[in-house]
Amino acid sequence: MAKKKSRKPEEDAVPSGSVTLSKQDERTLSQIQDMAEDVTKSAARRRDPALDIPARTLSNVHFNQNKKILEMGSKTTSRELFNIGQAKSFMQTMLVASGTKQLIEMGKTTSIRGLYYMLKHDIKPTKEPTFKDQGECDPIIEDCEVLLDSLREELHLFADKRGDMVGNIQIVDNGDEIDCSRMGSGGYAIPSIVEPNVIQFKNCQAKFVLHVEKNTVWQRFNEDKFWKKYNCILTHGSGQPPRGVRRLLNRLHNELGLPVYCLLDNDPWGYYIYSVLKQGSINLAYESKRMAIPKARFIGLRSHDFERCNLSNSVKISLNDTDRKRAKQIAEYPWFAKKKEWQREIDQMLKNGFKLEVEALISRSISYMTEEYVPRLLEEGNFLD
Amino acid sequence: MAKKKSRKPEEDAVPSGSVTLSKQDERTLSQIQDMAEDVTKSAARRRDPALDIPARTLSNVHFNQNKKILEMGSKTTSRELFNIGQAKSFMQTMLVASGTKQLIEMGKTTSIRGLYYMLKHDIKPTKEPTFKDQGECDPIIEDCEVLLDSLREELHLFADKRGDMVGNIQIVDNGDEIDCSRMGSGGYAIPSIVEPNVIQFKNCQAKFVLHVEKNTVWQRFNEDKFWKKYNCILTHGSGQPPRGVRRLLNRLHNELGLPVYCLLDNDPWGYYIYSVLKQGSINLAYESKRMAIPKARFIGLRSHDFERCNLSNSVKISLNDTDRKRAKQIAEYPWFAKKKEWQREIDQMLKNGFKLEVEALISRSISYMTEEYVPRLLEEGNFLD
Repeated sequence: MAKKKSRKPEEDAVPSGSVTLSKQDERTLSQIQDMAEDVTKSAARRRDPALDIPARTLSNVHFNQNKKILEMGSKTTSRELFNIGQAKSFMQTMLVASGTKQLIEMGKTTSIRGLYYMLKHDIKPTKEPTFKDQGECDPIIEDCEVLLDSLREELHLFADKRGDMVGNIQIVDNGDEIDCSRMGSGGYAIPSIVEPNVIQFKNCQAKFVLHVEKNTVWQRFNEDKFWKKYNCILTHGSGQPPRGVRRLLNRLHNELGLPVYCLLDNDPWGYYIYSVLKQGSINLAYESKRMAIPKARFIGLRSHDFERCNLSNSVKISLNDTDRKRAKQIAEYPWFAKKKEWQREIDQMLKNGFKLEVEALISRSISYMTEEYVPRLLEEGNFLD
Repeated sequence: MAKKKSRKPEEDAVPSGSVTLSKQDERTLSQIQDMAEDVTKSAARRRDPALDIPARTLSNVHFNQNKKILEMGSKTTSRELFNIGQAKSFMQTMLVASGTKQLIEMGKTTSIRGLYYMLKHDIKPTKEPTFKDQGECDPIIEDCEVLLDSLREELHLFADKRGDMVGNIQIVDNGDEIDCSRMGSGGYAIPSIVEPNVIQFKNCQAKFVLHVEKNTVWQRFNEDKFWKKYNCILTHGSGQPPRGVRRLLNRLHNELGLPVYCLLDNDPWGYYIYSVLKQGSINLAYESKRMAIPKARFIGLRSHDFERCNLSNSVKISLNDTDRKRAKQIAEYPWFAKKKEWQREIDQMLKNGFKLEVEALISRSISYMTEEYVPRLLEEGNFLD
């Protein structure tokens, strides 16, 4: 059985006691083991141990027109032990892989900061540290993710968590049943690791997900019980959503078939957040397949909302040079470049000369966003793709 | 009845429909009304309308040796309508008070950003805006808090929320029963407004609160089910805890009699967080009485932990000039200055020449902090006051 195979005793194995490994854990462990075995086999054959690391460079990222997500290409770079410029990073890669193996076998998770502390030590008898600082460890973690074709979360590493959820869904989180329709004003705090072995969807009555940018806007929607009236799930990501929120939205969309509508500011940052939710990010393109939601829709704010919603001059925030530069860059992203609607949208913002926050709608009335703005667009099916 | 009194129809009253006001809301409304009536009475008597605003200056803040909290003194400054330098801020103060009155009457809450948008407009027929920017509105909100002797939350204003809770307690949040011992890996997201009209404590089996600095450390404690083993409540505040977390800790301490133990980094920032939790902050001294927890205890990390816990050199983070300067300032705070233990603590850190993060304990083993460090100190009752 795979389970047995992946848990045979080894030198660095940590006694895992009664830890039960999930199928996912078994798969990840065997990836780590295969990598390690390749290295030892090379050594046994008296060949120089080396790793082929997929290149995480801009030139190795492309937009897949079929899947509509950012993907990594097939370029790799070799990382060799017997190469004075690569020996350190080779050993660091093996060390990180071995650290994540320990975590999986212990059935524990930690932050990238925690892993750094776990693995940092001076290599005796020298005073050479395994990692100078966190900045030297982080890219090696990303290398391991691509090398092992495993999300960071599958390597038992978590990120900061921020972002909350309420709505008509019941989930199971680590064995606890959580009814997100009974979460008061606070909500359920979305964890960093939301893989199926941690979070299962139990019942879902909701018909869609409304994802808003900021927690203050989320509080308005929750207080007005928007999710109850419109039978949906309400999430936020405190700005650029962290990995846990993106992965959870992806799962809600793919496993439960829920459309995801995004309510973001009318500014380049809002466009960028939408782009990452929808297509993935350039830096972490290898995650797109399990994070991105190509069918996500942008519900607003739109550049014509100043007129359409009859807003007053007092809510305008002038664009600065950075905004203008950033807007032009985003307009050239391949997934925006071919869409006339998005070109018009960005162009209109530049012509307006100002940006708008979602909160600007409060100038109409405190619940204008929950009672008029979003309901009207939902009814009209009026979204940007 | 007070209720009737505070809801009599007025020119700017917003139809409040079926909103039921809490006792707290009634009290706040009558404070706002009294303030407004003072102004109209002055005008009726042909005297210049003026407000006496408690001075939010360093010189008007002192440490109350009995209560062990920071307090505001009794200095006030007059803000007059018929004074060319004060007319604008006088009118802004009345505008903010009237905005919060509307919020209370509507039974709605908003962020300080939301209130700014609610109130911002050009004063016809001029093009003079009521507020130039958010920076002009925020201090007026703080003025209203002290003027009305009301926490921001009582004025129906919320802040960003961050911070989560799990543990052996059942609460009611806006009518929903939430069992914090069944919250999985995510936890209950602590809302910004945790006043008794929103959050009620239902059952509490827990014997104390462990408050940790960072959410990544909180995740370690939650994953190890520390709160279950030691029958406690586990909270974090994502660094400097936001108002909602501070107020909730205060309520858990005062209403349920739970001791609050703080696990923070061994650095000036950790000391400062402890100081704010315990005595309040200098900037917002008027909140101390409902936010500060004078009997909170500092469980660590301590400056002698490097030796005591047998940590390796690799976890040291060198102090920089800012750290040293900040540490000396904190040592001179009146509530640290008279405590020999704290003087030794800060002095030892300066002598060490390095700081330590809580995560440094992971270098011993991943669960050293949950299985050895904190349990031992709890058993020994070994805290800093």
